[in-house]
Amino acid sequence: MGSGRREIEVMANLLSSNDIQAEVNRAHFRKNNCLAINVIGSPGAGKTTLLEKSLPLLKDELHVGVIEGDIFTSKDADRISVHQIPVIQINTGGGCHLDSKMVSKVLPQYDWKALNLMIIENVGNLVCPADFDLGEAFKVIVLSIVEGDDKPSKYPVIFRNAKAVVLNKMDLEKLTDVNMETMKQDIRAINPGIAIFEVSCRNGSGLKEWTSWLTQEVKAYQRIN
Amino acid sequence: MGSGRREIEVMANLLSSNDIQAEVNRAHFRKNNCLAINVIGSPGAGKTTLLEKSLPLLKDELHVGVIEGDIFTSKDADRISVHQIPVIQINTGGGCHLDSKMVSKVLPQYDWKALNLMIIENVGNLVCPADFDLGEAFKVIVLSIVEGDDKPSKYPVIFRNAKAVVLNKMDLEKLTDVNMETMKQDIRAINPGIAIFEVSCRNGSGLKEWTSWLTQEVKAYQRIN
Repeated sequence: MGSGRREIEVMANLLSSNDIQAEVNRAHFRKNNCLAINVIGSPGAGKTTLLEKSLPLLKDELHVGVIEGDIFTSKDADRISVHQIPVIQINTGGGCHLDSKMVSKVLPQYDWKALNLMIIENVGNLVCPADFDLGEAFKVIVLSIVEGDDKPSKYPVIFRNAKAVVLNKMDLEKLTDVNMETMKQDIRAINPGIAIFEVSCRNGSGLKEWTSWLTQEVKAYQRIN
Repeated sequence: MGSGRREIEVMANLLSSNDIQAEVNRAHFRKNNCLAINVIGSPGAGKTTLLEKSLPLLKDELHVGVIEGDIFTSKDADRISVHQIPVIQINTGGGCHLDSKMVSKVLPQYDWKALNLMIIENVGNLVCPADFDLGEAFKVIVLSIVEGDDKPSKYPVIFRNAKAVVLNKMDLEKLTDVNMETMKQDIRAINPGIAIFEVSCRNGSGLKEWTSWLTQEVKAYQRIN
């Protein structure tokens, strides 16, 4: 029991230190009238590809910056940088999630006058990032439907804490055993208010709905701010 | 820096306490002449489905037990139990990986005279489980090829530490942009000796090679033991 108890206490301490910095980050985003979102999903859910496909649709109305979180490599930032938007890679060096301090360290490197949407792509992990507030306005889940319709009920914490979920790789629906109704029902049972988008980054379906929603969210944030 | 340093020290403490119990578990498996493997992969990589499809092929020659690790729900254990083999579910209650202590607690519930292969399915996570020795003989990765060919280089730690990788969902290869040669080259660059199996749990391809290899591993373990 001793070791278990100690682990929980340390977690509580880390979270509270993380939460304090998250509030500082949140105030920074608010001051700069920039909506920040924290994009979370398993490895290979399609987070980076969703950004690549969304940026051209967002660029007409918004000025977007990106923070790329990864354990190792700058592959994701390299992919985003061709879109000629400001992007910084954070490598956690083995760590399984971004935390608010890592994010705070890169914030001074952006020109905040020129941004109204900051997309933070977290490390590929459906578990640990759910517990770490980065100071974002809200979390967005990217879930590949190929992962299976049981994922929402098996990973409920992240679904409870997110404002939207992008169900990606819809082009593969017919080739898998996934039951989309079960999946969506389970998501709504956990979080009735969550926005659900069915998207294929491969054939482009659903991307317009997702990017329009995100654009409206930026406008609503700026009106309230 | 203070918080970062503290986190690393705590991790080292947890790991060493985990490692001690892992050695106790390993001695237990050795004493009972039972090969234990630690199966690791992202959510939806197909770990449980691989077990479901492998068990009928393993049952002729081996006596298999299963430990199912999950954050919440007993869905995976329910799926395995229909195969009439001993299975126990460990719910981590939010924790992102199994540890050796969790495993040790369920070991007394098995009839060890009747087992020669214990399959431990870890929590769906390609990051954290890599750092926690459960006392297994070796780790096996299950990777859905739909996750993309960049995953080995982005998650090298687990590929470095595993004896085999099952590349699953091969039936979807033609429908994705995955480059199988790149993926396999990257895996071998990280771990030249790793055994690679290309499998489709959906159409059954590659399952025989994987289960034959695993059966041979059990026999080799028992000869050395």
